[in-house]
Amino acid sequence: LSGRIHVDQWSFPGNSPGTNAFETGDPNLTPQDRLGFRRVRFGVAGSLWKTMEYKIEMEFAAGNDSEFRDVYLGWNDIPMVQTLLVGNQKRPYGLDHLNSSRYNVFLERPFVIEGFNQDARRLGVCAYGYSDDLVWNWRYGVFNQRLIQDEGVYVGDHFQGEGAGRLATTFWYDEPSDGRGYGHFAVAGTLANPDGSGTPGRGPNEAQFRTRPEARSTRRWLDTGQIAGADNYQLIGLENVWNFGPVQLVGEYQHNWVDRDGFEDVRFHGGYAYIAYFLTGDYMPWDRESGTLDRIKPLENFFLVDTCNDGVRGGWGAWQIAYRWSHADFSDQDVLGGVGTSHTLGLNWYWNAYARMQFNAIYGEIDDHFPIAGLTAGHYTILGTRFMVDF
Amino acid sequence: LSGRIHVDQWSFPGNSPGTNAFETGDPNLTPQDRLGFRRVRFGVAGSLWKTMEYKIEMEFAAGNDSEFRDVYLGWNDIPMVQTLLVGNQKRPYGLDHLNSSRYNVFLERPFVIEGFNQDARRLGVCAYGYSDDLVWNWRYGVFNQRLIQDEGVYVGDHFQGEGAGRLATTFWYDEPSDGRGYGHFAVAGTLANPDGSGTPGRGPNEAQFRTRPEARSTRRWLDTGQIAGADNYQLIGLENVWNFGPVQLVGEYQHNWVDRDGFEDVRFHGGYAYIAYFLTGDYMPWDRESGTLDRIKPLENFFLVDTCNDGVRGGWGAWQIAYRWSHADFSDQDVLGGVGTSHTLGLNWYWNAYARMQFNAIYGEIDDHFPIAGLTAGHYTILGTRFMVDF
Amino acid sequence: LSGRIHVDQWSFPGNSPGTNAFETGDPNLTPQDRLGFRRVRFGVAGSLWKTMEYKIEMEFAAGNDSEFRDVYLGWNDIPMVQTLLVGNQKRPYGLDHLNSSRYNVFLERPFVIEGFNQDARRLGVCAYGYSDDLVWNWRYGVFNQRLIQDEGVYVGDHFQGEGAGRLATTFWYDEPSDGRGYGHFAVAGTLANPDGSGTPGRGPNEAQFRTRPEARSTRRWLDTGQIAGADNYQLIGLENVWNFGPVQLVGEYQHNWVDRDGFEDVRFHGGYAYIAYFLTGDYMPWDRESGTLDRIKPLENFFLVDTCNDGVRGGWGAWQIAYRWSHADFSDQDVLGGVGTSHTLGLNWYWNAYARMQFNAIYGEIDDHFPIAGLTAGHYTILGTRFMVDF
Repeated sequence: LSGRIHVDQWSFPGNSPGTNAFETGDPNLTPQDRLGFRRVRFGVAGSLWKTMEYKIEMEFAAGNDSEFRDVYLGWNDIPMVQTLLVGNQKRPYGLDHLNSSRYNVFLERPFVIEGFNQDARRLGVCAYGYSDDLVWNWRYGVFNQRLIQDEGVYVGDHFQGEGAGRLATTFWYDEPSDGRGYGHFAVAGTLANPDGSGTPGRGPNEAQFRTRPEARSTRRWLDTGQIAGADNYQLIGLENVWNFGPVQLVGEYQHNWVDRDGFEDVRFHGGYAYIAYFLTGDYMPWDRESGTLDRIKPLENFFLVDTCNDGVRGGWGAWQIAYRWSHADFSDQDVLGGVGTSHTLGLNWYWNAYARMQFNAIYGEIDDHFPIAGLTAGHYTILGTRFMVDF
Repeated sequence: LSGRIHVDQWSFPGNSPGTNAFETGDPNLTPQDRLGFRRVRFGVAGSLWKTMEYKIEMEFAAGNDSEFRDVYLGWNDIPMVQTLLVGNQKRPYGLDHLNSSRYNVFLERPFVIEGFNQDARRLGVCAYGYSDDLVWNWRYGVFNQRLIQDEGVYVGDHFQGEGAGRLATTFWYDEPSDGRGYGHFAVAGTLANPDGSGTPGRGPNEAQFRTRPEARSTRRWLDTGQIAGADNYQLIGLENVWNFGPVQLVGEYQHNWVDRDGFEDVRFHGGYAYIAYFLTGDYMPWDRESGTLDRIKPLENFFLVDTCNDGVRGGWGAWQIAYRWSHADFSDQDVLGGVGTSHTLGLNWYWNAYARMQFNAIYGEIDDHFPIAGLTAGHYTILGTRFMVDF
Repeated sequence: LSGRIHVDQWSFPGNSPGTNAFETGDPNLTPQDRLGFRRVRFGVAGSLWKTMEYKIEMEFAAGNDSEFRDVYLGWNDIPMVQTLLVGNQKRPYGLDHLNSSRYNVFLERPFVIEGFNQDARRLGVCAYGYSDDLVWNWRYGVFNQRLIQDEGVYVGDHFQGEGAGRLATTFWYDEPSDGRGYGHFAVAGTLANPDGSGTPGRGPNEAQFRTRPEARSTRRWLDTGQIAGADNYQLIGLENVWNFGPVQLVGEYQHNWVDRDGFEDVRFHGGYAYIAYFLTGDYMPWDRESGTLDRIKPLENFFLVDTCNDGVRGGWGAWQIAYRWSHADFSDQDVLGGVGTSHTLGLNWYWNAYARMQFNAIYGEIDDHFPIAGLTAGHYTILGTRFMVDF
């Protein structure tokens, strides 16, 4: 039994008419502030007879609209394959998506990572493995492209499948310090076969890339729409991480080629880089089996308690500052999803290994967007705060 | 892991044309009987590192429309503050709302308590404390006024906040009998800042007070509607409880002043009083840390079992009778929410500390209601039965 | 805490224009393939003070639309009555419905069993008992006919009740082999009082019998619609099971007489029979307390693991083949629900007592259906695969 609670507050102190229009449809109506739950999850996981495992995790943050997240069954320790899972699970591209929202440095994921892999999880069969010396890890599988966490089932004669994989190496890991220093490199990608044919009775065309402004908004400000005629697309992604004690440097780049029938082919791409630094000397641990961030354990927990004997006692927790640059180009030919660039300053206050507070200040610009109320470009400033526990 | 199941049956044997219209819109169409689940809840709660706590509780009684109830994270034992919770939690006014539905004497809450604090829980930050001698307890906090258990998020540039608090004293507690006698007095209130401005793009005006006829109906028979121009309101509530062994006497009164821009200010108020008596000598325990009813533990459980050795054995459980008078005036100036008066007879059969059956017979009258199908007044008789377990 | 995950894939390789129309409304548009979750459940169950029990089980397979399944509270060991449950629980007719989906031989339930008892569970009060020698078991109760797992409540002045029961005997049980051989016979039925009156303001007429083609389709291909004037109906069902080690023979027959006001009375009926055989010498256990299939425990689990010392080791699990013939006649007088006949080949691969894979190939024909796009008959071929764990 595990779960998490994320409580968010978002405000939009500085929008231009263009981003007003992208959010509200009206250049004069600013995005409304938001206060609510970002994630309210709990679920169950376990193993069967030591050779199988299962997991169900529900997301209740939207109240009436429950959704599932990880829902799978699978086998462990299969020769050659290691772990094989069947069910709803993350597609294997985009480090920032493979990282849990419990450990990620920034509140929301970068344009390109979320845009090319909206909500990450799909129904599929995926294998997970790593080498005995923990230097290599990989995952590869076949997925249906439809996001079904809200519907539960994909209906359509065109399967809209994709084959995706990721090969990663923890090429450096400082064992003596228990991993305060490490380096990670990975290449990931997918060959996807969406249905842009417009055949009557079929499922919706899954060739669509879209994302919010790295914040919680009502609409998605970058959005290619369903790409007419999309026949297949090829995505490749590169990841690099360097960690030196309290300092972490991360960068990713993804490029996506979309082949179309009866239309010009289009290409989208983007990337991000961030630097994060712990003021308190802590570090971000690394999981070498999955090639993702691991749970941060502060050197000193935050607490301020009234004790019976000793009066008030307290600790400071861990403090981290971070900066991220992010860019995505979702506009090409007749597809005008927008070109976004954003800068995010982050401050994280870790109370203990299971709870923290995060603050982000974001400035961004969007150009080359299809016109909404006649506007194709705009800029914005957004502030976000999150309280978080997991258990 | 905890939860509850409440199964309800409601029938409407005697309605007048007015209350028919309030429920169905048609003076000749009576309210339909109801059979179903009132509450189907389960969730998780726990503590983190001894200094933090969390809770998620889901309500599944509406089938497709899941909702959350308590969802919070927080700290314990903070100096001066004691417990501080962030998240969805009960606003601190109205004893009958602060009491758990597991322990309340009557099936549904009184007009004024539910009307001024619909569904009780809001997203906010609230502190909870009590004095070492357990004579005083208090809670105070800041809340958003929007009910988000069905939506998960409040969206709006006007925050629609409120500051609310409650100071209570258990001025008498009979320690030798382990609390068979006690007296409680509390004053509670809120200063709320709803958005009655009607500005385009904003969240809905939260200045609305409404409630059902202390029973489960489809529509709310008392309803002010959204009060145009509401700028802020001030609510004050008084609570008094006396318990003498099997006898309990409870009364509450609340008064609400609504200030409006461009309209006449309005005032609403109401109260209730009840007497409850255990035929079987049991009593209703009191929680002095929160100033609310505690779990009733029957002197003898109800059971009727076939034993291997002794034949049939049985026990009678605890039996309680009760009467409640309730009144609310939600009509003033141009706001015609209705004036309701109701009388409820209750019979509770406690099977054990975690299960009981309840029966209510209600007679009530509503006047001064805005016209529905031309009718502004009516009376009604309602019967309700509930089966309940919690775990 | 228990639950289950069922992942399904369905394809429709051979439909005629008629069954195309039954599914899509268009004779030229074939049913679309499906990939998704059939069941994603978890919930809680427990006992209170040894004399009471409760259960809540949620179904999350539909994503946004959560539903509840078993939700009840009740008593154990009552003299004469034994167990008595109040809440949402299965109506006591149709062995194939009383069997858990975790143990059933085929992916979906036969026409007549599902058609006369759609989704099985209703809100009611039901008693469960068995004789000391385990030769007899029974269940009987009163239910509301409305399916409320999606709404949570039935609203209507006409109660639409039914009294239903089942008396079963395990007339043969081979104790020395721990139940590898047994014989079961049962008679079940209901007297139901639907509301076909068409009175304004009432709940919907519950006299409707419908089912999918023993597979997962969007629409129900057999469907009587709401039977106008239905006043009451009487259903009787017969069940017979013979098990000889790895071989199981099962048959059921149900007949339903519907009395109508102002229309001709109608009769519907149907049945099925299946034979199942374990290639691996396993058998299907029987629960003599409930008169239903029990958990299958393979003689050898399926596994293929990489061990540290011994290299690769594996087991084969249990393999079962099966054939089912099923027929239902839901057409009589002016009610043209359709007459269906289907043949199903099944292959089950049990990995361990809590996980298996199932494969079904179905050929069926439907006649005498009310016209859709002018068509009243059709045939179909459907393939289905399921991965399943429970915990």
